[in-house]
Amino acid sequence: MTTPARASMPADALLTDLYQLTMIQAYWEHGMTETATFDLICRRLPPNRNLLIACGLEAALEYLEGVAVTAADLEYLASLNRFSTDFLDRLERLRFQGEVRAVPEGTPVFGNEPILEVTASLPEAQMVETYLLGAIHHQTMAASAAYRLAAAARGTPVVDFGTRHAQGAAAGADTARAAYIAGLAGTSNVAAGRRYGVPISGTMAHSYIQAHERESDALASFAATHRATTLLVDTYDIRRGVGFVVDLAERQGGESDVAAIRIDSGDLGANARMAREVLDGAGLTAVRIIVSGDLDAERIAELVDAGAPIDGYGVGTALAVSTDAPYLDTAYKLAEYAGQGRMKLAASKRTWPGRKQVFRQFENGLAVRDVLAVADEPLDGRPLLQPVMTGGQRLDGTQPSLNAIRRHAKQSLAELPQRVTGLAPADRPYQITVSDKLKRTAEALERRLRAEA
Amino acid sequence: MTTPARASMPADALLTDLYQLTMIQAYWEHGMTETATFDLICRRLPPNRNLLIACGLEAALEYLEGVAVTAADLEYLASLNRFSTDFLDRLERLRFQGEVRAVPEGTPVFGNEPILEVTASLPEAQMVETYLLGAIHHQTMAASAAYRLAAAARGTPVVDFGTRHAQGAAAGADTARAAYIAGLAGTSNVAAGRRYGVPISGTMAHSYIQAHERESDALASFAATHRATTLLVDTYDIRRGVGFVVDLAERQGGESDVAAIRIDSGDLGANARMAREVLDGAGLTAVRIIVSGDLDAERIAELVDAGAPIDGYGVGTALAVSTDAPYLDTAYKLAEYAGQGRMKLAASKRTWPGRKQVFRQFENGLAVRDVLAVADEPLDGRPLLQPVMTGGQRLDGTQPSLNAIRRHAKQSLAELPQRVTGLAPADRPYQITVSDKLKRTAEALERRLRAEA
Repeated sequence: MTTPARASMPADALLTDLYQLTMIQAYWEHGMTETATFDLICRRLPPNRNLLIACGLEAALEYLEGVAVTAADLEYLASLNRFSTDFLDRLERLRFQGEVRAVPEGTPVFGNEPILEVTASLPEAQMVETYLLGAIHHQTMAASAAYRLAAAARGTPVVDFGTRHAQGAAAGADTARAAYIAGLAGTSNVAAGRRYGVPISGTMAHSYIQAHERESDALASFAATHRATTLLVDTYDIRRGVGFVVDLAERQGGESDVAAIRIDSGDLGANARMAREVLDGAGLTAVRIIVSGDLDAERIAELVDAGAPIDGYGVGTALAVSTDAPYLDTAYKLAEYAGQGRMKLAASKRTWPGRKQVFRQFENGLAVRDVLAVADEPLDGRPLLQPVMTGGQRLDGTQPSLNAIRRHAKQSLAELPQRVTGLAPADRPYQITVSDKLKRTAEALERRLRAEA
Repeated sequence: MTTPARASMPADALLTDLYQLTMIQAYWEHGMTETATFDLICRRLPPNRNLLIACGLEAALEYLEGVAVTAADLEYLASLNRFSTDFLDRLERLRFQGEVRAVPEGTPVFGNEPILEVTASLPEAQMVETYLLGAIHHQTMAASAAYRLAAAARGTPVVDFGTRHAQGAAAGADTARAAYIAGLAGTSNVAAGRRYGVPISGTMAHSYIQAHERESDALASFAATHRATTLLVDTYDIRRGVGFVVDLAERQGGESDVAAIRIDSGDLGANARMAREVLDGAGLTAVRIIVSGDLDAERIAELVDAGAPIDGYGVGTALAVSTDAPYLDTAYKLAEYAGQGRMKLAASKRTWPGRKQVFRQFENGLAVRDVLAVADEPLDGRPLLQPVMTGGQRLDGTQPSLNAIRRHAKQSLAELPQRVTGLAPADRPYQITVSDKLKRTAEALERRLRAEA
């Protein structure tokens, strides 16, 4: 395996909401350039999630290190006739030089906990909001959906086949990375293999069979080219397709070189049982059965519960768009400016002010609660927010390999109570408490904000 | 407005499913390089859609013109130890040199109609499947969701604020393009402005208000920097926020330079009415009211029906992930190889063989049905599939401007019966018929495929 290639292009600074730029112009004009802290949080868990898997930090930090406007960007912005020359001059020189603390990728997180915290001069921190939200939202959503697929399969490998239903194939590569971190076995997306080192898998589609006059010829020719491959058997009639695989083994002297068959339609459990009987009857007990087609966590769990003889699952749309929770309630909220805590009072969008820490507290090796606290409180428990960037540069030793992130996810999940790691809604959600000090700080700030005339 | 910049990087050839590459190796080894035709279709409309707006062709064609593996790609593929040297040599030289026919972007389409048809040597046509599906699926889904938002607002502008919930901010720019084509007024995504020429909009977020000690100071300073801007009034208390806007106008001599206020929380209809009364009471009848926050087509329609005094809507998540139809049942299906029709017989995934045409038939200026037919049938009606690429190069005169595409969408929608252009499920779906000739062709082919021993 070669080292995954990194994007060599500078991050596109115009991948942002226009209001970030209009606000920056106003901040500069009025000297609002003191240090700000923003929290990136998911306010509430979606109905179908007991937990989220934090993901997307690597993409976020790569962006922060590289983001800069280009001459073409400035030309475009000037053409809008809404920005001052002074603003454009300063924007040209703007780089992110701030500090980032973050929950390590692969860590399970819950509602209202900061996943990432940016501390930088206000314009810098504002500039990067949209991109950071996009990266963290997308990969956290994908990892959280993937975790459930892996949990449903109880150890049987699940592979991502979803790129065609992603928001473009490049987004699909990011989904594949997040899904691998959360426990999937690999992806069909080749760029995810090259860019991120995700194991890739895939052999043949129906079009290969259809392009041949005879299905039997198609299967034989493919097996001749690829050793230990997976043959697709359901293009016309599954029983007939499996029969051709048996014929192929007989022509090879009873020792099939075929590693597996794939079934992509119909009643997957019944079809797998039928195929298993036919294969076993021919002595092909080592040929595995892979299924795909409209699978989600619930259907996989049903197949596993029913004892279907299935050795691998391919999942597409349910992962690509996270069908049962297609978005998260993420936000990037100002928590502090110029040393003063800040919060929003608007109904249902309350936030906690100031720099914070999340302490995960354990009893007998099991995580029992998270405490949202003021950053420097000396509380028991494991602090989840870790420094990862300072002065706009990643800290040494804070870039774990993809497989290290994946192991961290597995270990962190194993530390949680089983009621929240299962597929069913937890009878009692994981406990999140707020420290007394943070509560007092918020109450004092709220009184002051409400009193302002 | 400057000319939108084009991506200068070659399209990433590894943004594909691995099975495309394993199939290509087998095709080459076995001399399967004759001409193939694939259809890109949406098999069935989702439950919440009476129609789709075809979109994404521009991205698809740009990819087809540029796709090529790089030296780094080949090095990665070689490292997998699953491809032959001959395959890698040939892959290095592979370029898409085929022909494409497509429904023009912005055209309303229905289930089982080819949106795009690729005719090329089998390996070339196979190589491009994943990327084309990703581009067409994403933008068609986004345009179709956006159309409903625009229809719900009945002429009041709707703007895309959804980038933060897209699958990364780059996907958000593509969503913004599709949404503008389908009738939205613009987007907050600045890159969508620069890349595609979509009008951009946006002024301030809550963080601007919160960064100031006093909300009134924040509103005043922003209005001092930006003329004719939109001020956000709901950070702490909406009535108080609107009051500050009135104060600001009074300090400016009763003539507010503020163009609009934005309300992002609470009961948007009630809040808009309250704000309208306060503004009108102060003589600020020209100050518009923009609302945002958890809006979708149904909520916009309710606000419009209730006569809420709202002058613009900002929509985020409902567009970014198409919440009411978060994926389409798209597929890329082999229709012909070496001059012979091909089809799949697997349950519920039947396809129509051969090169086809869709004829949209009109009565009294209104489209009454589409007929799916053999490509060269001399049927009445407007043929929807148009040649757009030959020899791997776009045909001259087949690249309409973004605004021409948007006008085409509007005109094509106006030609459809009102029962299918409304938000409610059509009492009778738009009629799609299949020509007798295409039916006979399919039946003959099916008999032959079922008979194969």
